[in-house]
Amino acid sequence: MTIPTVEIKDDAVRLIDQTLLPAECRIREVKTKEEMWEAIRVLRVRGAPAIGVAAAGALAVEINRSSSVDSARLLEELEAAADYLATSRPTAVNLFWALERMRETGRRHRELPASELKKVLLAEARAILAEDREMGRALGEAGAELIPEGSGVLTHCNAGSLATAGFGSALSVIYVARERGKSFRVFADETRPLLQGARLTAWELGREGVDVTLICDNMAAWLMKTGKIDLVITGADRVAANGDGANKIGTYGVALLARAHNIPFYMAWPSSTLDLSLASGDQIPIEERPAEEITIIGGTRLAPEGVKTCSPAFDVTPGELIAAHVTERGIIRPPYAENFRRVFAAEQGLE
Amino acid sequence: MTIPTVEIKDDAVRLIDQTLLPAECRIREVKTKEEMWEAIRVLRVRGAPAIGVAAAGALAVEINRSSSVDSARLLEELEAAADYLATSRPTAVNLFWALERMRETGRRHRELPASELKKVLLAEARAILAEDREMGRALGEAGAELIPEGSGVLTHCNAGSLATAGFGSALSVIYVARERGKSFRVFADETRPLLQGARLTAWELGREGVDVTLICDNMAAWLMKTGKIDLVITGADRVAANGDGANKIGTYGVALLARAHNIPFYMAWPSSTLDLSLASGDQIPIEERPAEEITIIGGTRLAPEGVKTCSPAFDVTPGELIAAHVTERGIIRPPYAENFRRVFAAEQGLE
Repeated sequence: MTIPTVEIKDDAVRLIDQTLLPAECRIREVKTKEEMWEAIRVLRVRGAPAIGVAAAGALAVEINRSSSVDSARLLEELEAAADYLATSRPTAVNLFWALERMRETGRRHRELPASELKKVLLAEARAILAEDREMGRALGEAGAELIPEGSGVLTHCNAGSLATAGFGSALSVIYVARERGKSFRVFADETRPLLQGARLTAWELGREGVDVTLICDNMAAWLMKTGKIDLVITGADRVAANGDGANKIGTYGVALLARAHNIPFYMAWPSSTLDLSLASGDQIPIEERPAEEITIIGGTRLAPEGVKTCSPAFDVTPGELIAAHVTERGIIRPPYAENFRRVFAAEQGLE
Repeated sequence: MTIPTVEIKDDAVRLIDQTLLPAECRIREVKTKEEMWEAIRVLRVRGAPAIGVAAAGALAVEINRSSSVDSARLLEELEAAADYLATSRPTAVNLFWALERMRETGRRHRELPASELKKVLLAEARAILAEDREMGRALGEAGAELIPEGSGVLTHCNAGSLATAGFGSALSVIYVARERGKSFRVFADETRPLLQGARLTAWELGREGVDVTLICDNMAAWLMKTGKIDLVITGADRVAANGDGANKIGTYGVALLARAHNIPFYMAWPSSTLDLSLASGDQIPIEERPAEEITIIGGTRLAPEGVKTCSPAFDVTPGELIAAHVTERGIIRPPYAENFRRVFAAEQGLE
């Protein structure tokens, strides 16, 4: 669990280029907002929490590099850079949450001299990173009890160390359950089209010595039917006030299949993933990805030239299919609208 | 619909090497039973009906090539070759059905001189091929009414011309509906791991001018949820007496998702796919495929070296999830045990 997914230096954000995994674990130095926009867009860094941390880091580094000596000018640059980075991906809310937190930090310290403002922004980005690690650990501690001894656990996409700055969300639950001496088996959906399950989840679980078996997405139903899966746990990219959760495409289908087999389905996420401004998941924008991500792998064309595709990057799982949400504040059960309000009201300014 | 998926010559079975599609449409001449065993095993020829036709052809060609001048000896060779070819793949029943039909033809003509016996066997293999074409056409005619004008049709794997000697099963329904002037849209699941949907279905539907959109398997649920799918139709590899149907891995999941969205799910197959000797689908053997089919595509490694996989090639959809079976005898609705007996009793020797 010492994977350096994202690190924030004074002059660069260092991140593992996840497009190269599992063949190669290479650190990439991202020095400008344009480079970070591209890194987020092509999924060199991915996973809702990790995107938030990386974007916050890129903002701080961008401002730290600025030649402006005037704080008002730095704040303008901060706002412009945040607006720009916000266009990199639309669905995960942690990106907007982290950018907003950086903007607010800037505004709050607008009276500081430029050199101090730069330091405050770097410190804030690092605080976001540190808190993400702590939240990941805490939600793992909270959720570990959900994994019964000897069970089969299905996960989809990658909600692990590589999706966060630290322990992960869904996989943090798995890591903590294992630390506590539980023995169980994880099945990882490969997660087409970009294969985060095959490339990232299988890699990081294997590295930690967790018993992991890779399957194609379309095999999950049959494994449930034949008794190999006892629970499903995934991450989330944005959770609405009613408990609906957006996550990697395919999650909604897995949740329906779990329901059909009476298997509990859980979503695990740090509170930066919660968007109480949305009444329901219907309002979450769903990113559409390019055809080539489906039709080409490693230079091999898998489908006829010019074939039409449809490639939503995410889907929304209705709260009623989710047995519980696992957060750093603990396990939250339905009714979600009520229980989210109770647990998260203070920091979302609802009280 | 003039794709020469399988042709039977006197000295070879000619087949499109489907492992090369869509990059290349190359005809391969298969001259020996060993070559046919390999071609079936690695899916150069695939699709339950096409496997049956190809295996029958290989048997006839094998015997035609034999230097034996004695019919009794030829029949021994026929039995041995049929036993051998039966080990190529376990799930689809058409293979065993076609091999058995060739054996019976041999036994029935055991009194003929060797040269005549050879001709009879070649003729029988060609009859199996011709009947497969006719059945495909007939089931397309029978099923076309199931496709409403303006609908969205989801299919899984390839149950088209490439899966049969002629028009296909599920795709025959689509081809006939289109001939009748209906306009509709087809969504093709890519069908991991071997991508028959991306490589074959998208290719053959595109070639016929059908409006086809390729999706990853894990997108089907979301397309159903967002109202793009009005019905699902697939082929089948073996159908049991109670209406349970084995088909490509992922089919069972799609059927469950269709049920959850109140979308009808249909299976289309020629009667050579029916196995009334099995009371239920629980008795259908499920082939397990090698890890490399999941972990490597076109030389690109998609997952860490040595990762465990689980790769069932098929799953079984319970009859209660199937709104109707489409056969060359017409559309058959539940209760299947009763209605299969009524429709198919005569030729299965049950009367």
